[in-house]
Amino acid sequence: MQEDITITRYEPKKKQGLIVIITGNGKGKTTSAMGMALRGCGHGLRTTIVQFMKGDLYSGEWDGVKYLEPLVTLYHTGKGFCGIEGNPFPHSEHRKNAQDALQLIKQIIQNDPPDTLILDEINNALQLKLIDLDQVMEIIKLRPEQMHLVLTGRDAHPDLIALADTVSEVREIKHAYRKDIEPQPGIDF
Amino acid sequence: MQEDITITRYEPKKKQGLIVIITGNGKGKTTSAMGMALRGCGHGLRTTIVQFMKGDLYSGEWDGVKYLEPLVTLYHTGKGFCGIEGNPFPHSEHRKNAQDALQLIKQIIQNDPPDTLILDEINNALQLKLIDLDQVMEIIKLRPEQMHLVLTGRDAHPDLIALADTVSEVREIKHAYRKDIEPQPGIDF
Repeated sequence: MQEDITITRYEPKKKQGLIVIITGNGKGKTTSAMGMALRGCGHGLRTTIVQFMKGDLYSGEWDGVKYLEPLVTLYHTGKGFCGIEGNPFPHSEHRKNAQDALQLIKQIIQNDPPDTLILDEINNALQLKLIDLDQVMEIIKLRPEQMHLVLTGRDAHPDLIALADTVSEVREIKHAYRKDIEPQPGIDF
Repeated sequence: MQEDITITRYEPKKKQGLIVIITGNGKGKTTSAMGMALRGCGHGLRTTIVQFMKGDLYSGEWDGVKYLEPLVTLYHTGKGFCGIEGNPFPHSEHRKNAQDALQLIKQIIQNDPPDTLILDEINNALQLKLIDLDQVMEIIKLRPEQMHLVLTGRDAHPDLIALADTVSEVREIKHAYRKDIEPQPGIDF
């Protein structure tokens, strides 16, 4: 269908690391971050993803990103959703886990910084006091100027929104679970 | 970090094809759809993506999805953004192209239906009258009951929102281009 058009490749004059925040209560924050990792591959860019909070429930992206190795690396940390009914771990345990994740993030930035670093659900981790605002600020300062930093999760902190270059709020208009439809693989996890 | 936790794999009792709409004026609609394709791969699910409107400007997902072959297939159609200043093609040409894309979509559904069919920017195509509402309704009726259908793009039609199971609106809170930062590869395209 495209035999008669010319494909343009945009090349920014200035390469610049962006801070991107994807927040809000709707479906599509983590998936959007995964899409950025995939898109980066098309430019030969390396992406590292560190997921907070999602440690105990399988999500398709864990195996999906394996197709993108070695350009994309994913670490899932955490012991499931802190504060959710039925989660057996105390807050101190969740906090310790998130603190370990912060150490991992610092090591990644210092030893092998990717083009894009995605910190998935870090906004929730901050909101739940598993990590502190000054710790996130430290990561922002540590990062190389050209590295993109993507922060996802509900309830993004206003100070982070103020610092960010691009911020999207994903609002739930409708969600299937409100009609008692179970989460479906590939769509919801 | 996860040696002491058990990973749970959720299995819905009922597998059900969902209609998902990702709309709104913010960054993260197409990337979210790409993330669903990636996530699907982790479940061994096949995804086909048909992109409207994006035919003339390279976007990283075009090569990114090649890592996911043969589970994921992407077709980019269209002659660039209709109605955008500088686009040389008349409306009739854009419409013809979008109509060809609809034929392709019907063939895919009839001959080789994937688990998830993503129609990227179809909402814009409808809003710009490149396709008609009853044509989208026809696709919805044609699809196998278990196939997920993901419709992205601004200005989703209210009748489609009414039909959908899950709808997210991605709102722009901030965007780097408003600070005159150029689009960056891997993040913006």
